[in-house]
Amino acid sequence: MVNFTQKLKGASEANQSLVSIGLDPDPELMPRVGILEFNRAIIDATSDVVCAYKLNLAFYEALGLEGLRALEKTVEHIPGAIPVIGDAKLGDVGNTARMYAKAIFETFGFDATTVNPYLGYDSIEPFIEYQDRGVFILCRTSNPGALDFQSLACSTGGETLPLFELVALKAKKWNRGGNVGLVMGGTYPRELKRIRELCPGVLLLIPGIGAQRGDLANAVRWGLDAERKAIFSSSRQILYASKQMDFASASRSAAERLRSEINRLKG
Amino acid sequence: MVNFTQKLKGASEANQSLVSIGLDPDPELMPRVGILEFNRAIIDATSDVVCAYKLNLAFYEALGLEGLRALEKTVEHIPGAIPVIGDAKLGDVGNTARMYAKAIFETFGFDATTVNPYLGYDSIEPFIEYQDRGVFILCRTSNPGALDFQSLACSTGGETLPLFELVALKAKKWNRGGNVGLVMGGTYPRELKRIRELCPGVLLLIPGIGAQRGDLANAVRWGLDAERKAIFSSSRQILYASKQMDFASASRSAAERLRSEINRLKG
Repeated sequence: MVNFTQKLKGASEANQSLVSIGLDPDPELMPRVGILEFNRAIIDATSDVVCAYKLNLAFYEALGLEGLRALEKTVEHIPGAIPVIGDAKLGDVGNTARMYAKAIFETFGFDATTVNPYLGYDSIEPFIEYQDRGVFILCRTSNPGALDFQSLACSTGGETLPLFELVALKAKKWNRGGNVGLVMGGTYPRELKRIRELCPGVLLLIPGIGAQRGDLANAVRWGLDAERKAIFSSSRQILYASKQMDFASASRSAAERLRSEINRLKG
Repeated sequence: MVNFTQKLKGASEANQSLVSIGLDPDPELMPRVGILEFNRAIIDATSDVVCAYKLNLAFYEALGLEGLRALEKTVEHIPGAIPVIGDAKLGDVGNTARMYAKAIFETFGFDATTVNPYLGYDSIEPFIEYQDRGVFILCRTSNPGALDFQSLACSTGGETLPLFELVALKAKKWNRGGNVGLVMGGTYPRELKRIRELCPGVLLLIPGIGAQRGDLANAVRWGLDAERKAIFSSSRQILYASKQMDFASASRSAAERLRSEINRLKG
């Protein structure tokens, strides 16, 4: 079976793209169509310009069983060659984490997921054990609250580093199978640079470059790994490019623009 | 409308109990019945000996749509006077956190939930804004991995404290509406004592006292708030007291034993 890393490489090279579209359907921002219809139209219009799709589970869970049915159908609709990231930011104690890993990778069938590091290794290990799947550990997130704890100066083993840097160093250590990456908000280029210095090889999932107004030039400059790869994820800027019935073609145009801009910056 | 705190107080006093049963149905450990049937039997047998029920979403999500349907029906089956905690440990950026808060409190109808602090205030605020619901912020969890990050010595404003203590102090500050509590594993009595010193008034949700073998005497000694209340949550020790068809009455006996033991220690 093709693992996540190979699948990502394949899609990225075939589509010449480092763009992931966040399929986060928000009824208040969407045109007046059902969310499954919306997602299918977006996927049909963009599947040759992306390297991945990312589904944030919140937007589906908020709609209850109907939303989760739409999530399942959306995952089914995505062409098999494009990896699908289930963005759930989970973190729970060992035996519960195993249940979540089963839910994400087996029940929903995602190729990769995001996890929260606060509970430590035994909360992440059950995900990493799925060696054909990708696990992105939250490191420095793109929101204002990231400052509350992630940047605190922490001491361990004689060293003092910001918490998110210690998370990155642990992730590097836990990445024995090559399937562990980090989530780094595109809104903090200085921190991106620092992570790139600490972990030159690690794959980054970089949200916050669209509606959250990250600095794209610096995100590309520091975000790429040794193979000049990263996943730049945009949701609102692409999904809601138009609220009219031309929304799918408008999304395609927005995704193409972002792809070109990243490829130009990447050089 | 009765808010979470009042509902908890009502149930706790009516049932003379600080015990919450974690309804975490694991098909590998359960007798051979469906999970909804299992949950209903446990609820029917125990609803007069508990102060709350806690559902960990992992166990339902692992079973896909069928599991989530069972979750909805389980919540419906719990008597209205008993508060129900949706244990999801969520944490996401602001606009996504709002979607999760909607899912937990409106779609699934939980009275309270657990959240992860790693993303900071804007990831927690949308939950706290539901002033009639309870929000338990993960502080020191009951698992071995808690040591990886939660106990790191962190510096801020001239003070150096373990990360989980800084989380507790922030939670205290964020608790303007009186609906914020903390999750403190029963496996770490020294840390419980410390939290009790820092935040004498805060309500604690204390898992890890059953199968995870916390020290119950110290958990009761240090876990109670100013009103001598706390929520002691046990899942496996109660749910799987018997694997035979007498499982419900065996669970009741286990819950009664735990209730008595806590009440005796509470004095």
